[in-house]
Amino acid sequence: MKTLIKDVDIVTLDEKGTVIRGGAIAIDGAFLVAVGKTPEDFAPDTTIDGTNHVAVPGFFNAHCHASMSLVRGYAEDLPLDRWFNERVWVAESALGPEEVRVGAQLAACEMIRSGTVAFNDHYFYMDHVAEVVEASGMRASLTWCQFGTGKEVGVDLEGALAFAERWNGKAEGRIRAMLGPHSPYVCPPAFLREIAALAKEKGLGLHIHLAESGEQVSRSLATHGVTPTRLLEDTGVLDVPTIAAHALYLSDDDVAILARRGATVAYCPITYMKLAMGPGDVPRLLRAGVSVALGTDGPASNNDMDMKEAVRFLTLLQKLACRDAEALAGDASLRVATQAGARAMGFPEAGALEAGRAADLVLFDFDKPHLVPRHDLVANLVHAAKGSDVSHVFVAGKLVYADGTILTLDEEKIRAEAERAAFRMVSRDLTVLRAYTS
Amino acid sequence: MKTLIKDVDIVTLDEKGTVIRGGAIAIDGAFLVAVGKTPEDFAPDTTIDGTNHVAVPGFFNAHCHASMSLVRGYAEDLPLDRWFNERVWVAESALGPEEVRVGAQLAACEMIRSGTVAFNDHYFYMDHVAEVVEASGMRASLTWCQFGTGKEVGVDLEGALAFAERWNGKAEGRIRAMLGPHSPYVCPPAFLREIAALAKEKGLGLHIHLAESGEQVSRSLATHGVTPTRLLEDTGVLDVPTIAAHALYLSDDDVAILARRGATVAYCPITYMKLAMGPGDVPRLLRAGVSVALGTDGPASNNDMDMKEAVRFLTLLQKLACRDAEALAGDASLRVATQAGARAMGFPEAGALEAGRAADLVLFDFDKPHLVPRHDLVANLVHAAKGSDVSHVFVAGKLVYADGTILTLDEEKIRAEAERAAFRMVSRDLTVLRAYTS
Ligand SMILES: [Zn+2]
Ligand SMILES: [Zn+2]
Repeated sequence: MKTLIKDVDIVTLDEKGTVIRGGAIAIDGAFLVAVGKTPEDFAPDTTIDGTNHVAVPGFFNAHCHASMSLVRGYAEDLPLDRWFNERVWVAESALGPEEVRVGAQLAACEMIRSGTVAFNDHYFYMDHVAEVVEASGMRASLTWCQFGTGKEVGVDLEGALAFAERWNGKAEGRIRAMLGPHSPYVCPPAFLREIAALAKEKGLGLHIHLAESGEQVSRSLATHGVTPTRLLEDTGVLDVPTIAAHALYLSDDDVAILARRGATVAYCPITYMKLAMGPGDVPRLLRAGVSVALGTDGPASNNDMDMKEAVRFLTLLQKLACRDAEALAGDASLRVATQAGARAMGFPEAGALEAGRAADLVLFDFDKPHLVPRHDLVANLVHAAKGSDVSHVFVAGKLVYADGTILTLDEEKIRAEAERAAFRMVSRDLTVLRAYTS
Repeated sequence: MKTLIKDVDIVTLDEKGTVIRGGAIAIDGAFLVAVGKTPEDFAPDTTIDGTNHVAVPGFFNAHCHASMSLVRGYAEDLPLDRWFNERVWVAESALGPEEVRVGAQLAACEMIRSGTVAFNDHYFYMDHVAEVVEASGMRASLTWCQFGTGKEVGVDLEGALAFAERWNGKAEGRIRAMLGPHSPYVCPPAFLREIAALAKEKGLGLHIHLAESGEQVSRSLATHGVTPTRLLEDTGVLDVPTIAAHALYLSDDDVAILARRGATVAYCPITYMKLAMGPGDVPRLLRAGVSVALGTDGPASNNDMDMKEAVRFLTLLQKLACRDAEALAGDASLRVATQAGARAMGFPEAGALEAGRAADLVLFDFDKPHLVPRHDLVANLVHAAKGSDVSHVFVAGKLVYADGTILTLDEEKIRAEAERAAFRMVSRDLTVLRAYTS
């Protein structure tokens, strides 16, 4: 299948930050064969008129819990401890495989519509999420969350490994799988050690929560004598490619550890604002050589899964928090939201628009009053464009969304099922599954 | 003209915060005659099916410079002083009446589409903005900005007063006018005194910038011996109803002055983040009894005029800055974005959905994956809904936007003219109009 997109503006995010006005993009199978000029001998099966549209690499959502879309709006205006103990972990005690499936379908619809081509999911009953990914045409990196406390949800460590081995590389290579200890504040060190050794043996990465609050750091120092980040290094977690979500509270030594070990921090700005957790410091991480990717987190703390919103929050929050209007200038935030996540999630071929790379790309329709004038396409994308301006989404060369219609999922049915499942879930007799303490 | 909206969910923003599921809204002329149940004898000319839609009061954008839409994306990643001196005041030196007209048209299109019914504009060549407001069907409060330095743009104080008297109350009462000294850091105290006295004599309000940086406060203390806020009180500015944009740097005494004088602070969160100015403290102002309204500011510092985005930024930024996840809980931000602005801009009849009040309202289409499930309509509105989810906009009972079409303006022509005018503007020989110093 060959597709030509013609007369399109292109924000390539290549090394030089090339922006092309009125160029062409040629797609053959899952890959880009030309970006800029149409190859002379290219005979497309389909041609898309890109007039007034801007092409960019699709977004890689580097940390989320997609099925939590069912608890969107169910945990409002609460600090982190009450958010966990009074709402989220209560609602999740009513969660079964069917809720996970429907929640993931709803999230996939939302993500596709707003230009996300891949997500890094950390949750339960993950076979159902994998099936949704396969059907949706998206890419994903999937992890069955483990508490390591004997109170697992739906599976033990052996089962989580079996899940990873069952799905890693499936769906024409669109699925990757990892192991997922919840966090160093929930998992005992012995379990971190066990899961890290297993990941190393099986060649899998790890996806974990890290250092979300100052209290977590203090408690770790008091209990283990080391910071949470150092604890990850000591238990071998950082011996394998690791995506550490949040990592807001880091000493200089912690930052150096993450840089040296090549870990990726998945930064989720909207969660940090909503739960009043703190802004972190993305430029500090980037300066130290830590790879930073962008995530939406789950819709109980966000309340959406729109990476375009997250790009804007990332940019503006870091400018303010660093008191530096030049922070994350130009296309820096777009790189965090695309290629950094792609690399960490196991799809290094994606994340920039260049011949030879994966055809994971999104068209934004700029024929809207808020995207006129076009002095600076990158600024319009970072600040003014909305997820809802996305008109086309290609994943691995395949069109999954065009002009208001998702081509892979039955959106109307999913919306109706999700609404019913969400109300069923919160109207059950609910009990707290576990207790959050920092 | 009588309109009935039936089977609609309603976030009334009345005193009790009433939310109605599956109710009706009856509009007669410019006013609401019923909210909740259809009156028995109501014979509508038009009926709108509100299934899966949520009605809320339309947004009042309490501080902007609409015509700066033409410099969207032209002043990126710069601190406040360089943003003014190297870009904004340079581009504005090429600004004429025609650019003001086209820029205001473009902004009106963007605002209407994202649910804004009224804006408080502070700019130049304001007759052209007034004509756009009249044609668009929106409400506005309009001010011809004055520098008080002899280097005015297009008009002197007498002319600005003549503008205000020419337009105040026009367009079936949809237009209000004020006087507009730029700021206490640009206008000398003698001029503030003169314009304040004139406003008082003529019964007009004032619209001014205030205390945007700590440096402005230090310089004011050094030059005038008082804070900028105290200077406004001393020069009589606060003797008339005043909208003070920004007011980020306030002593306790300043806060008390604003509360005692009944001034309204127009808070513009996206500007403060983009230019790294600081977050301010909205709960502090509200606790002290200061009225706080919400603005987008101009598109050179935002880069959009979407009040729904501003609502989300207001909520999340204040939760983070106050380190209080309960800050601005529930519908508090929606009230700031609607009724507080309506009152300050001279339309106290608008801002809530109750019988007898103005029919200024917006329908959001909730039949979208990011707005499912509907556990909490207010949370979905504040956090997850986008300006692009707005499906209908009524101003003073008149439908100005429905299902993707602006009914009052020729949007396609405006987009094309704006693009041309913007490029003409920045390709002229540009000189700095004036110098910004704190
Ligand atoms: Zn998480
Ligand atoms: Zn302003």
